[in-house]
Amino acid sequence: MEVITSTQNPKIKHLLALQEKSSERRKSGLFVVEGRRELQHCVEAGYEVVAQYVREGEAPSKSPRGGTSISVSPHVYNRIAYRGSTEGVVAIVKAKPCSLEDLLAAPHSVPKTTEAPSGAVRGAPNPLFVILESVEKPGNLGAVLRSADAAGATAVIVCDPLTDLYNPNLIRASIGACFTVPMVACSSEECIRFLKDNGVQILTAQLQDSELYYDTDMTCATAIVMGTESTGLTDQWRQAADAHIRIPMLGRLDSLNVSVSAAILLFEAVRQREIKG
Amino acid sequence: MEVITSTQNPKIKHLLALQEKSSERRKSGLFVVEGRRELQHCVEAGYEVVAQYVREGEAPSKSPRGGTSISVSPHVYNRIAYRGSTEGVVAIVKAKPCSLEDLLAAPHSVPKTTEAPSGAVRGAPNPLFVILESVEKPGNLGAVLRSADAAGATAVIVCDPLTDLYNPNLIRASIGACFTVPMVACSSEECIRFLKDNGVQILTAQLQDSELYYDTDMTCATAIVMGTESTGLTDQWRQAADAHIRIPMLGRLDSLNVSVSAAILLFEAVRQREIKG
Repeated sequence: MEVITSTQNPKIKHLLALQEKSSERRKSGLFVVEGRRELQHCVEAGYEVVAQYVREGEAPSKSPRGGTSISVSPHVYNRIAYRGSTEGVVAIVKAKPCSLEDLLAAPHSVPKTTEAPSGAVRGAPNPLFVILESVEKPGNLGAVLRSADAAGATAVIVCDPLTDLYNPNLIRASIGACFTVPMVACSSEECIRFLKDNGVQILTAQLQDSELYYDTDMTCATAIVMGTESTGLTDQWRQAADAHIRIPMLGRLDSLNVSVSAAILLFEAVRQREIKG
Repeated sequence: MEVITSTQNPKIKHLLALQEKSSERRKSGLFVVEGRRELQHCVEAGYEVVAQYVREGEAPSKSPRGGTSISVSPHVYNRIAYRGSTEGVVAIVKAKPCSLEDLLAAPHSVPKTTEAPSGAVRGAPNPLFVILESVEKPGNLGAVLRSADAAGATAVIVCDPLTDLYNPNLIRASIGACFTVPMVACSSEECIRFLKDNGVQILTAQLQDSELYYDTDMTCATAIVMGTESTGLTDQWRQAADAHIRIPMLGRLDSLNVSVSAAILLFEAVRQREIKG
């Protein structure tokens, strides 16, 4: 089997460009996944792997959709791997964008009760969305996806995103949740229309003019909407809201990380639905 | 005013050693704080600032406990500042270790109701502790402190810590919560004895042999105990527990970030206490 030993090899240069440039990802419709567990979640979610770059002497990740396996020298591997040497595999994968319409059509929108653990939100007919308006940091979005996965949320919708959904920091921070939770990018306008048309109540997280989140009924179809840590939500969302909710800030600092806020709000919905169900 | 222009200046070398080496911090009883907001929280918490290193042309952070102000060239500043150039101040501060006994004596243990917002846990007579066993990453501990601050927790206790409590990554991730929330390092044995002696119920977070966290009463004095993401809690803690609690994992991944788990559990205590109170 061929072993690539130079970081100047055109295939390696292409891989590095996909890691570093969102324009390259958009142009080619490809992105990069690092790590065996992440790759497994990615393949299970139906993504098609184009190529796996595996450190010399290590086994490729086995999968019918696993793509071509290409061996690289440790020197080349260290250049393409962000995490250092623990994982041994970096893959190029075909993007598979998901739209708001897909959420209605996909099995996620009406989840199978049999697949869900007892009392799971996924098993309920009432969806639970997380909406992020203009999240700045890909790592924050990745962490929100991880919280959304744990709470069995239906999907994460990113409005007017400032990053593409295949940013390597996003994938890394999500530890694979970007493949287990449907993720849609659209405009705020489209998203509000989608929620209104489908009878999903809109709860905006905001400190001002709001009620405590645990006083709010989340047992019906619900979208939890959060803004950026620095600027909060735009008026467009505040006005579209059915209720404004807040997490009480009982300490000296005035903000929580967005993935922490998302988890607190999502698990309150889980609790209410479990108790009601 | 003197301006330090060389990174080889003994004062700068000392500051860098304090940032990089826990042994240096232990030996000298000093640590480093970066950022104006963090420094403000630090001073408000009664810490004594030894020296402020301020980028040439910028104002030092004003405070009666603000220490000597030393001007440094942009070149030197870039070397000592982790975050780049946005903040303009890096300070050396005297450590002020807190013990379990201090928690009993300190105003934090019996907080003044007048200082706490309506319905705040700090205003309640029943403490709410977060206990972390052997947390590996300083950044994770910092993020837990931020969650603990928001939920008005009484203190964060770190058992058998693998990091010192003045690690720069910890301070950074906490965005100052390491100064607003009392933080104690001790052995698991000491901690368990302290909790038992003071009638604090011990709730260990574990996926096996556990009840759902929202089915557990947290309105009395409570310690929420969490292990590492990789290995969980030791038997010592599991056996000391009054109840084992779990956050239901409704997705495909099997873990939450420790600061996210801490926030979900702490805010359930906040909710229960608010509703009961």
